[in-house]
Amino acid sequence: MKRKDYEALLEPMQVELVAMERWVRDTGQRLVVLVEGRDTAGKGGTVDAIRMHMNPRSVHVAALPKPSEREQHEWYFQRYVRHFPTGGDMVLFDRSWYNRAGVERVMGFCTPAQTDAFLRDVPDFEALLVRDGFAFFKFYLVIGRDMQLMRFHERRHDPFKRWKITDVDLAAIDKWSDYTRAQDDIFKRTSSKLAPWIIVRANDQRRARLETIRWVLFHSDYAGKDARAVGEPDANIIGTGPSYFKAE
Amino acid sequence: MKRKDYEALLEPMQVELVAMERWVRDTGQRLVVLVEGRDTAGKGGTVDAIRMHMNPRSVHVAALPKPSEREQHEWYFQRYVRHFPTGGDMVLFDRSWYNRAGVERVMGFCTPAQTDAFLRDVPDFEALLVRDGFAFFKFYLVIGRDMQLMRFHERRHDPFKRWKITDVDLAAIDKWSDYTRAQDDIFKRTSSKLAPWIIVRANDQRRARLETIRWVLFHSDYAGKDARAVGEPDANIIGTGPSYFKAE
Amino acid sequence: MKRKDYEALLEPMQVELVAMERWVRDTGQRLVVLVEGRDTAGKGGTVDAIRMHMNPRSVHVAALPKPSEREQHEWYFQRYVRHFPTGGDMVLFDRSWYNRAGVERVMGFCTPAQTDAFLRDVPDFEALLVRDGFAFFKFYLVIGRDMQLMRFHERRHDPFKRWKITDVDLAAIDKWSDYTRAQDDIFKRTSSKLAPWIIVRANDQRRARLETIRWVLFHSDYAGKDARAVGEPDANIIGTGPSYFKAE
Amino acid sequence: MKRKDYEALLEPMQVELVAMERWVRDTGQRLVVLVEGRDTAGKGGTVDAIRMHMNPRSVHVAALPKPSEREQHEWYFQRYVRHFPTGGDMVLFDRSWYNRAGVERVMGFCTPAQTDAFLRDVPDFEALLVRDGFAFFKFYLVIGRDMQLMRFHERRHDPFKRWKITDVDLAAIDKWSDYTRAQDDIFKRTSSKLAPWIIVRANDQRRARLETIRWVLFHSDYAGKDARAVGEPDANIIGTGPSYFKAE
Repeated sequence: MKRKDYEALLEPMQVELVAMERWVRDTGQRLVVLVEGRDTAGKGGTVDAIRMHMNPRSVHVAALPKPSEREQHEWYFQRYVRHFPTGGDMVLFDRSWYNRAGVERVMGFCTPAQTDAFLRDVPDFEALLVRDGFAFFKFYLVIGRDMQLMRFHERRHDPFKRWKITDVDLAAIDKWSDYTRAQDDIFKRTSSKLAPWIIVRANDQRRARLETIRWVLFHSDYAGKDARAVGEPDANIIGTGPSYFKAE
Repeated sequence: MKRKDYEALLEPMQVELVAMERWVRDTGQRLVVLVEGRDTAGKGGTVDAIRMHMNPRSVHVAALPKPSEREQHEWYFQRYVRHFPTGGDMVLFDRSWYNRAGVERVMGFCTPAQTDAFLRDVPDFEALLVRDGFAFFKFYLVIGRDMQLMRFHERRHDPFKRWKITDVDLAAIDKWSDYTRAQDDIFKRTSSKLAPWIIVRANDQRRARLETIRWVLFHSDYAGKDARAVGEPDANIIGTGPSYFKAE
Repeated sequence: MKRKDYEALLEPMQVELVAMERWVRDTGQRLVVLVEGRDTAGKGGTVDAIRMHMNPRSVHVAALPKPSEREQHEWYFQRYVRHFPTGGDMVLFDRSWYNRAGVERVMGFCTPAQTDAFLRDVPDFEALLVRDGFAFFKFYLVIGRDMQLMRFHERRHDPFKRWKITDVDLAAIDKWSDYTRAQDDIFKRTSSKLAPWIIVRANDQRRARLETIRWVLFHSDYAGKDARAVGEPDANIIGTGPSYFKAE
Repeated sequence: MKRKDYEALLEPMQVELVAMERWVRDTGQRLVVLVEGRDTAGKGGTVDAIRMHMNPRSVHVAALPKPSEREQHEWYFQRYVRHFPTGGDMVLFDRSWYNRAGVERVMGFCTPAQTDAFLRDVPDFEALLVRDGFAFFKFYLVIGRDMQLMRFHERRHDPFKRWKITDVDLAAIDKWSDYTRAQDDIFKRTSSKLAPWIIVRANDQRRARLETIRWVLFHSDYAGKDARAVGEPDANIIGTGPSYFKAE
């Protein structure tokens, strides 16, 4: 999608996001948006597109660094819980607790037993949040192998994005199949009725961002929604759960 | 039990607690002891008896004040999670998340739906902790009505304990049956295989403290345990789960 | 300044910011940038221009909401201290502790004695940070009255910026002179040798952003600095301390 | 002092402490008591004697473990600031920021420059707290060399106190003179008008506890003070500032 078309489509949706944010604040909602995906899938850009025009005093981005020594020995979810919203706030997770079933698993930063325990426990954990009243969206951006290679290449030559490349990232290239297996397990074992994965085809980043925002808007009952500006989710780009992804 | 006899029995067990604490620290255990019970049941005294000779740098008491405005709108468990131990630490909860099914329910500080949701969710929450490797003990001190009346009377006339009496506490006297119903529901709905209630007859406070400490020691595999000093839990005082309590 | 020219000038400086960020991380610097100014002066946009290409895992924006009940009774600086960087991190404050001498003073949210105490104490507080090794920059964006009116007008009609307008903001229009007096006192009493105010003429937002970034780069000794890309601060736009401002 | 006499004298003062605590809570005071001294000087016991009958929901003990990796690179005072009281609360520091001029200096855990910077900065830091309205007491328990040797000996043979002995502690014996120099510098450089050291002769632990509590009570204007129960500080035991200590 061209930048110009993207911006023309994005603008009315960001107006809606601002309306939604006001509703979150006025009615005391707690909204959590979690964005996952392989390296270069576009997680950070998606998070930025959502928060761009929002009030930094009530919309927070949680992009956690690697756990401290203390955090490593805490209850696994504890360091994420610290960033949960209070009433009226939104938190956007750029990566999340799913690290344990993704990068940590593939790179050997945790034991297979720990990954397995995580995959078993995470649906219960998320169910607790949803049943407590959180509006919880979890998006998984999927990209193809060629696209990942191309983006890594770009990053290496883009002076702004060089910080994004670490050894762990480069390993992602060689470990494509390991990450695929990790991704499969995540979809199979952690998509639940209360907290389904919303899978987004993200080879076209701009389209992916639009559809992600649209999904949040479409599924939120904020006051003054302009249904025309929101539109309907594009089933070719975005959809729910593992079965959707299999069609990929 | 007389003070002299109590101290003679307590001393060797506190030596064991110190040994257990070293083991917790050296092997990176995370130990949580939660003490619940009606007003005047002896929660604070039990917590103090456990921590008395322990290292305040690794053994923490969590006796939380009423929730702040911000905390009231967070995920219900969040403010307790903040106090969870990291590896090598112990946390003793003097009162706990069960407030929602006890004082908050009886005094109308939350809605019946909130209490019901709590009773439904808490076993899942605690299961997450135990499956993550927490050593988790939850004790419920039970007392009779006459004993509560006597202790309230004492408190009112004890210059050290006057701070312990608030209007909410005094209401406890009139609401004895409401608290009994609350207690019954807690036992029925929240004693699980992974996190069973350990119920302690606490009309005799000293005996209750001894048996609580003994239970923790007996069920912990610390190095250098002196089985004779620990002894065996006294089934007339302490036991597991609602059925035990029904025998009361 | 036109958008195209701005972007052409901004780009090489953002490459430098990325280099500086790597140095901050590799050498364990702690960098704090504080951005103050009247409503509509462009604080948020300046912060965004700095962080745009930086790693969200080590560069944090602190845009604090109004203090909670608990925070209101803490040591005044405590809630800001919570957000201070550890080694290798940067924190960008969008508004700051100077609220007490700005909005809180003008709107009567604190007593004159509290403002006075703040103005007396803040140089000592900041000196502690600088002497402890913080790289600390504090920028004050100054705008003219007509510019503020124009921008408020814009905001009211910009669907993205409507959230930025609160009653407190609108009061800013009527209270222009009160804010001027507050500003004067801030400059006179809180610009110290260790923590001088860097005053930025911000009627042209783009130019103000460029000069702010340039100042940080120019005064940081990061490895691999490209002196040509950084250039030299424009003394017509940016400079140090109250005397500079008086020339305004 | 004999245990029986001690308890007879302590009791009425603890009744006063409870009254003072109510005043702290009702009038929103923030009270910080810091207890320092060589190893075995009796810091923990003094803190315990103060808090014994107080409400654990508003009186907190801060006995911090060694700093985490993250904390080591923060602003030096930051990890202590985290534990500061809000209105209505008391915090008792068992050891404190003075570590930097005591154990860290003597054991080489920090550089001489860091100790020197600390000694230079700490009066400014404490002045900020006092001028912000904190009721701030800092006590230094002094003991003689023979007493320290005797207590270390006791600890080694007391099963409850064995945890208190670490290699760092044992080094204290050999480093008596280094600690004396450290202590001298602390008194000379950090006793200020706003935050003077209150020096307590602590060879007799019980007497030291009584005089410490008495000092807090005597210098606090709580409602309903019983001046007879409080009495007057015993100038043979307790007094202000370095000059007092020199008389030792």
